[in-house]
Amino acid sequence: MPIQAYVAHQAGATLERWEYEPKALSPYDIEIDISHCGICHSDLHMIDNDWGTSQYPLVPGHEIIGTVVALGEQVTHLQVGQRVGVGWQRSACLNCDVCASGYEQLCPNSSAVIVGHYGGFAERIRTDSRFAFAIPDALSSENAAPLLCAGVTVYSPLSRLGHSAQRVGVVGIGGLGHLAVQFAAKMGMEVTAFSSTPAKADEARQLGASNVINSRDDAALKAARYSLDMLLVTVHVSLNWRRYLQMLRPNGILCFVGAVSEPMQLSIGALIDKQYNITGSSIGNRATMRQMLDFAARHGVTAWTETLPMDDVNTALARLRRNDVRYRFVLEA
Amino acid sequence: MPIQAYVAHQAGATLERWEYEPKALSPYDIEIDISHCGICHSDLHMIDNDWGTSQYPLVPGHEIIGTVVALGEQVTHLQVGQRVGVGWQRSACLNCDVCASGYEQLCPNSSAVIVGHYGGFAERIRTDSRFAFAIPDALSSENAAPLLCAGVTVYSPLSRLGHSAQRVGVVGIGGLGHLAVQFAAKMGMEVTAFSSTPAKADEARQLGASNVINSRDDAALKAARYSLDMLLVTVHVSLNWRRYLQMLRPNGILCFVGAVSEPMQLSIGALIDKQYNITGSSIGNRATMRQMLDFAARHGVTAWTETLPMDDVNTALARLRRNDVRYRFVLEA
Repeated sequence: MPIQAYVAHQAGATLERWEYEPKALSPYDIEIDISHCGICHSDLHMIDNDWGTSQYPLVPGHEIIGTVVALGEQVTHLQVGQRVGVGWQRSACLNCDVCASGYEQLCPNSSAVIVGHYGGFAERIRTDSRFAFAIPDALSSENAAPLLCAGVTVYSPLSRLGHSAQRVGVVGIGGLGHLAVQFAAKMGMEVTAFSSTPAKADEARQLGASNVINSRDDAALKAARYSLDMLLVTVHVSLNWRRYLQMLRPNGILCFVGAVSEPMQLSIGALIDKQYNITGSSIGNRATMRQMLDFAARHGVTAWTETLPMDDVNTALARLRRNDVRYRFVLEA
Repeated sequence: MPIQAYVAHQAGATLERWEYEPKALSPYDIEIDISHCGICHSDLHMIDNDWGTSQYPLVPGHEIIGTVVALGEQVTHLQVGQRVGVGWQRSACLNCDVCASGYEQLCPNSSAVIVGHYGGFAERIRTDSRFAFAIPDALSSENAAPLLCAGVTVYSPLSRLGHSAQRVGVVGIGGLGHLAVQFAAKMGMEVTAFSSTPAKADEARQLGASNVINSRDDAALKAARYSLDMLLVTVHVSLNWRRYLQMLRPNGILCFVGAVSEPMQLSIGALIDKQYNITGSSIGNRATMRQMLDFAARHGVTAWTETLPMDDVNTALARLRRNDVRYRFVLEA
């Protein structure tokens, strides 16, 4: 039976109703009846072909929640009727050294849900069951959907590189940042939120930040010199990275999760003198995804969402382009 | 009794014989009768005031080996007559959080042997006993002297960030690099040496490298794509860092120990996609220094040195400026 979906036929296009005939169910695939799908900034990047990897017709959507309606013959860990979620990653070889080391999100042969495959702005999807995750009962579907991409993207570096006693700065309070503040605070870290939007200060505190710094206030950035152990950068724009590095204490970590396109100018002397670590983090592996969902359920970490019917996808995309959302759109079937 | 030393009276000056009256021995100080002192590139940087921190008259020398001849009243762990070594670091507060975390080399109040103090191109030195290290009997003084700065500088990141199964690239086969190849090979790593001097290929293999790549051969660099877990950069000049990053596998580490003055242009997208780590390393703490000396003694890691009488210090410095040494000058009293 064909699948109804919303599609971009070319770069930057408005989405249109469309239908496609799904491929036969492979042994490890499942079919999911989609109830919710979050909208991530990378959906916009893919619609616009910002990364040169888009293939049209393109069905965006990779923060998918729904119910399993069919199982491939090798699928034993999921059942028909079960609520599951799917994020950015569609599959990986699960056999190379990278996968075997627990970094399947970095597998050279990994695939993404919306690159060369049709994504979650649709009524159903067929995808690799090994990258579909049971959703804990404590999480509502609309608040859990954004955890599948935004959530794991910030949880992974916080849990992998951080520890509870750390003073962590979250740069940018948006779809990713508002989850990062919650996770870091619940992990026991002292959180400083950086935002250029003064109106977000109270919200950041409500999310768990102890301190809020206006990222346009250079004097405030200077005053925070030598105060943080880690900075998690969730923005997509270039900032005064030198100033941010100065906020780190020795051995401090500057970790990027937002795709900043401009290169960073890095002083090698500063790296040596303070043993700074500059790194990036890419979504998370499957164990981290499950741990993140469990952590979110136990601690009540949820995305702040605005839910719209899937038919209003173009309204949501237009508003997301203006950053007019607190903090994540979720489309509902 | 005054101390005879070799001094630069101004930036870039030829060293001259000179004498100074040492300060009274502080409670934790010792006086050392110097038998050997290695010459490090940073002695040249300090003579030339390249880092803006030089104070003249300046006595260089911070790879010091000699015999303890006097003890401050609080010194209990060393004895008169004992052979000890002193490296770059003179002291630290040993009380702040950074020190208390075992990173005293990053202490904001640390001091260096040749910054505001008179160094090891001299017959004697008074310095903090807590940063003087017993030299294992198995190490000769002339081969051990360079371990105190060059040795610990490369041993520290290899032991802290590496593990025995890794494929490590050592970029630059000189004073630091020729020790890094030895340490990494003896730690069980597979070592690829990068040098722009083809004549060093055989020597690099003799030091323990399994592979040698001419760093000027771009096709060879390209062919090594995706082959290494860690790159330890010991050179002082800017290279095609993008090409070097491409040699790293996911989660790979690019670690700088040489003071490259030009900033690095870093693609943030590449950091995220491969979870690369860019970092620097600064000498090593005291535990690492002791571990390094013990490791060197057990495994026969020694600096390849050319020994000259201390009176020939200007000859040695002039030849070091031309990189005319394999691989380290050591001055002998």
